Amino acid sequence: MHCLRNCWHQIAWAEELAEDAMLARTVLGEDVVLFRNEGVASALRDRCPHRFAPLSLGKLEAGQVTCPYHGLRFADTGMCVHNPHGAAVASLAVQRYPLVERHDALWIWMGDAGAADPGSIPDLSFIEACPETAKIRSYTAVDAHYELLTDNIVDLSHADYLHPTSLGSGFNTRTKARITEAEDRVVVAWESDSEDAPPAFQIASPAKLWTIVDWFAPAVMVVRAGGHPVADPAAMLDTLNLHSMTPATETSSHYFACNTRSFKLEDAGFNAFLRGQLLHAFQVEDKPMVEAVQRRMGTTDLWSLRPAMFPSDRGAVCVRRRLAKMIAAETGS
Amino acid sequence: MHCLRNCWHQIAWAEELAEDAMLARTVLGEDVVLFRNEGVASALRDRCPHRFAPLSLGKLEAGQVTCPYHGLRFADTGMCVHNPHGAAVASLAVQRYPLVERHDALWIWMGDAGAADPGSIPDLSFIEACPETAKIRSYTAVDAHYELLTDNIVDLSHADYLHPTSLGSGFNTRTKARITEAEDRVVVAWESDSEDAPPAFQIASPAKLWTIVDWFAPAVMVVRAGGHPVADPAAMLDTLNLHSMTPATETSSHYFACNTRSFKLEDAGFNAFLRGQLLHAFQVEDKPMVEAVQRRMGTTDLWSLRPAMFPSDRGAVCVRRRLAKMIAAETGS
Amino acid sequence: MHCLRNCWHQIAWAEELAEDAMLARTVLGEDVVLFRNEGVASALRDRCPHRFAPLSLGKLEAGQVTCPYHGLRFADTGMCVHNPHGAAVASLAVQRYPLVERHDALWIWMGDAGAADPGSIPDLSFIEACPETAKIRSYTAVDAHYELLTDNIVDLSHADYLHPTSLGSGFNTRTKARITEAEDRVVVAWESDSEDAPPAFQIASPAKLWTIVDWFAPAVMVVRAGGHPVADPAAMLDTLNLHSMTPATETSSHYFACNTRSFKLEDAGFNAFLRGQLLHAFQVEDKPMVEAVQRRMGTTDLWSLRPAMFPSDRGAVCVRRRLAKMIAAETGS
Repeated sequence: MHCLRNCWHQIAWAEELAEDAMLARTVLGEDVVLFRNEGVASALRDRCPHRFAPLSLGKLEAGQVTCPYHGLRFADTGMCVHNPHGAAVASLAVQRYPLVERHDALWIWMGDAGAADPGSIPDLSFIEACPETAKIRSYTAVDAHYELLTDNIVDLSHADYLHPTSLGSGFNTRTKARITEAEDRVVVAWESDSEDAPPAFQIASPAKLWTIVDWFAPAVMVVRAGGHPVADPAAMLDTLNLHSMTPATETSSHYFACNTRSFKLEDAGFNAFLRGQLLHAFQVEDKPMVEAVQRRMGTTDLWSLRPAMFPSDRGAVCVRRRLAKMIAAETGS
Repeated sequence: MHCLRNCWHQIAWAEELAEDAMLARTVLGEDVVLFRNEGVASALRDRCPHRFAPLSLGKLEAGQVTCPYHGLRFADTGMCVHNPHGAAVASLAVQRYPLVERHDALWIWMGDAGAADPGSIPDLSFIEACPETAKIRSYTAVDAHYELLTDNIVDLSHADYLHPTSLGSGFNTRTKARITEAEDRVVVAWESDSEDAPPAFQIASPAKLWTIVDWFAPAVMVVRAGGHPVADPAAMLDTLNLHSMTPATETSSHYFACNTRSFKLEDAGFNAFLRGQLLHAFQVEDKPMVEAVQRRMGTTDLWSLRPAMFPSDRGAVCVRRRLAKMIAAETGS
Repeated sequence: MHCLRNCWHQIAWAEELAEDAMLARTVLGEDVVLFRNEGVASALRDRCPHRFAPLSLGKLEAGQVTCPYHGLRFADTGMCVHNPHGAAVASLAVQRYPLVERHDALWIWMGDAGAADPGSIPDLSFIEACPETAKIRSYTAVDAHYELLTDNIVDLSHADYLHPTSLGSGFNTRTKARITEAEDRVVVAWESDSEDAPPAFQIASPAKLWTIVDWFAPAVMVVRAGGHPVADPAAMLDTLNLHSMTPATETSSHYFACNTRSFKLEDAGFNAFLRGQLLHAFQVEDKPMVEAVQRRMGTTDLWSLRPAMFPSDRGAVCVRRRLAKMIAAETGS
């Protein structure tokens, strides 16, 4: 797969991985099994080295996994600790992937394990900082290439057309984005002193508004979105949102999102309202649209289809170019 | 796809395209969206030139289509009339296909637009001439190559085995067909002075019967079928039927049929009886059989499978040869 | 397909083929139709030589099959005995496969018909010898390569992990198998003087136990499994079991099994208990596991995936090597 390997990909929300059950997920075309040992999460290749049975169909006991087919048992290090049919030699080890639990999420490293530095996980500490009562996490499996999902976030003007009843008000179309680039990072910022606020924000118009997308390679985005009525700066609302995409296969992705906010922190009614708005936007509006685009494009590369390009695409183009450059550097191509 | 492009293909029945809703259909492997502007039907490529979203998922307002993803708006000419992100320049136009509404149907031209002459649509004015109360239209999506559907009509002897309770009486098997050929047309005629009439005809036996298939390239057939009891020429019943096939993909087709008749024009009970007979024949008997043949053949060409050929296949062979010649002429191969 | 052709494959249980109905089944990628004529079963290619309709969708009358599409009729010899559209010439014959009904089963020969010697069907007369009240036959369609199913039987240690509540007790893991090889036959035998008996056997422990797998190329296995309490040799229970696999396609197989026993021959309650245990083992435990292995392996050859190999795999390795040698000899590769 044409992906960056030497980087952290979100493979799950931490809460998806219970203490006593395994979770199987495909990342960059490889089958991975996740499980916990005394709370600590590990990721192994989900394929027994003997006869290629999925370990995730086996038993998890005391933080060790027993293959369902012929009984080999593996520790969370990947080492075979019990082989009923011979010696539990080192060559029986299954591949262990570096895995870090941070910012409510599980992050996997699919590349060279020696290079896996947890310090390179983007700082998403706003997630832990936000109380659970004001946090909305979601996971959506999408049948589309992950870069189509990145495009979707980096060009937020789509919200004005695809999400007009929740996240769009015309603001991201009317306002020209400022773009700032670094090596593996692109920031796309929309700011206006007087705009109509999106319905989900519940800010009286005219409003001062901002939306700032901070992209970290390969596909982690932090979106700051907020505003206040022009007449009432004290009534400021602000949100920080994670949008994190992980390639499953060439044409499917894992899409993780987390909304946090600085207001109505204990308001369960508002939380339910906002959760409904966001899930509707992601799952009923974004997912079918991006999947329809994938079907129209097939497996053809975006550029070879010669898309029309507008100023609103500049952010997405920057991101695609930087990522392509990083992948080329990694693969030596 | 190995198809004739410079010709008219039926893409829909006119009644399938309402005034206020789009219709998406794949023709020769291309995604097409149909819609009306003040009643006049148009056909555009169903793919926005910006990010390849299907226009058919967007909004139709005042005869113009707005892309659901980023709000570009297109007139029925294909020209972009509104681009929220920049100028609505000519290069944003989506492909417009020549489309003609005639004979209750919508006809599309997938080839060189400059060569699209509505005069080359076969004369099917018997369709308009027939009152609605004596007309039975149908549409069936079939998972089979369109030439297998053409074979099915041009060799009507199949009715004697596949439709014995409605359209078959042994007549088309016992009678030798006369074949007449022109450049882009083949006529296959079965006629007898004394035969058993098919059950759906309700003609007392012995009967004088006729079935005449008039094929127009690439896959439009007019079938005249009728007869009268030998003893009572005045009790003549006659029908004119359209069978029109359009390639969707290499292994799927659109099958349109329309039955018209010269008798019982106002008899709602007979109309319901005949509709039941015909729909059963097309959808319960023809469709599964032709789809099973497609599965048995896979994507292998008919001739390379070396089919056994009988006199009853002469019509189908003529049609296949003429069409192959026209396609070769068009593609220069 | 990479299979042995000059050999007998089980295509069905005899009871699956009624007197008045056809049975369609794919073997080695070829579509076959089975039917009876005065009780004698025949196998023809399930594809009319005229327009490739499946004969199995047609009519069976007086031991002859009529094609549903254009009425050609075929005898059980494959000869066309009636052609409504011309002469029933010899060239219209459909391929007839040698077929033998023996040991409650129907055996087909997909290779050179001249070499088809019924004498080379393995002797499974234990099947007829067993009364119906003590015989449990099953058929399971499995989405996996047939050699994965062979591996499953030849390495019965899997029962200790996959079937712990019915067929496994640890015996086949703890006991080292003795392997005996002949040209087209491999015998794998586990025997112990003092072991725990599997739950389904209902033999008091400690028990003397034996399991002997007798493999005949390409994929017919007779499994003798039995035992008696160490303290009571007279309470011996013994079973003879057929496990017979037939390739359908590269990634799917037909799996036939038959359990016979030497005890409780008239005990309907025990028969129902044992049937439940076996069907659960085959269909709820084996089938999903072998299909999961197939998905993990894809279409990659076992050896190129470099599986870890244990002493418990020696039988499966012998079988795979002998079969590969026979296939290479047959194809001259």
